[in-house]
Amino acid sequence: MPQQGLLIVVSGPSGTGKGTICRELLRSNPQLKYSISATTRQPRVGEVDGVNYLFVAKDKFQTMIHNDDLLEWAEVYGNFYGTPRQYVLEQLNNGYDVVLEIDTQGALKVKDKIPEGVYIYIIPPSLDELADRIHKRGTDSLETIKKRLNCAGGELTQAQNYHYIVVNDQVETAVQKIETIITAEKHRADRNSDLISRLCQTNCT
Amino acid sequence: MPQQGLLIVVSGPSGTGKGTICRELLRSNPQLKYSISATTRQPRVGEVDGVNYLFVAKDKFQTMIHNDDLLEWAEVYGNFYGTPRQYVLEQLNNGYDVVLEIDTQGALKVKDKIPEGVYIYIIPPSLDELADRIHKRGTDSLETIKKRLNCAGGELTQAQNYHYIVVNDQVETAVQKIETIITAEKHRADRNSDLISRLCQTNCT
Repeated sequence: MPQQGLLIVVSGPSGTGKGTICRELLRSNPQLKYSISATTRQPRVGEVDGVNYLFVAKDKFQTMIHNDDLLEWAEVYGNFYGTPRQYVLEQLNNGYDVVLEIDTQGALKVKDKIPEGVYIYIIPPSLDELADRIHKRGTDSLETIKKRLNCAGGELTQAQNYHYIVVNDQVETAVQKIETIITAEKHRADRNSDLISRLCQTNCT
Repeated sequence: MPQQGLLIVVSGPSGTGKGTICRELLRSNPQLKYSISATTRQPRVGEVDGVNYLFVAKDKFQTMIHNDDLLEWAEVYGNFYGTPRQYVLEQLNNGYDVVLEIDTQGALKVKDKIPEGVYIYIIPPSLDELADRIHKRGTDSLETIKKRLNCAGGELTQAQNYHYIVVNDQVETAVQKIETIITAEKHRADRNSDLISRLCQTNCT
């Protein structure tokens, strides 16, 4: 039986660059599996079903919720998004590490179900830079940006619910840090209790 | 104020090569500090006071115990060994990482006092190889070796009290694994709560 894979959950405030980091992480580590979200929203230009998202109809999504087929789900502006459970668990059981890029609310729901996962929170080097990045995207109002940057009750305070914090100063170094975290986590004693028992079974007389 | 340094505690059964690993780790990472044990035993040929050990008289050692100057101490065959507290804490407070190579009993005592340390257990690739290494040293009787290799009540069962397990298949790779663990640990959220508050203080309006 292969060693159980790691679930690597990556979150962070919008505009932190976690999407870019995850894409680069997966490109540099083709052995990693990417957990694709299911959604009821329409595909955007260039998005491919089964690659970017699993595009499903609303009634199909409702059935998935009903059957507890989703590790987490949420409704955003009338569209549903969720993480299919079966794919993630199958990959982990087969010894593959799975990367899940997800917002903080979703991450906490997944953490309740899979606490042995590795929860990584990406933060920007500065809030000025974050505001700048969000502005450049041009999809959010200044109001929304300010709300997100509200430290008192905003997303950044969620960092304490994660195992690791990685500053995205440069994509390449942030990816390297996540690779380092994955390698270190594979050596954690609680993931390797079988190492000792195997050592003992095969050699002790 | 510098970020608090990491205490890196390295243990493992005798003959696992933890001494060689620690020497190589310190050689490759001169910024790491080595916690030198105090002992009442006589220096062996080539051992230097303040480098290999702090060689102290028995009454001085008793005073150190009495003043709670030691993180842990033990008597082995009539000689006393201990870890001076002040040096370790000073280095950590100044932001230096400190390596402490110590037996499992000592490590558990230190863990009680400094639970935020990183506790690493080195194991051999196989028990045959371990027995072979101990034999080659020639300082232990076959009886002692067998006792150590007793998996039921022996040292290996202590691995569960550590945070990480590293297999010493090759010194170089074992050292790399420890370096990876140190880097990852520096990104743990509970060691970086100030990152978020600094981010908020300097930029939030």
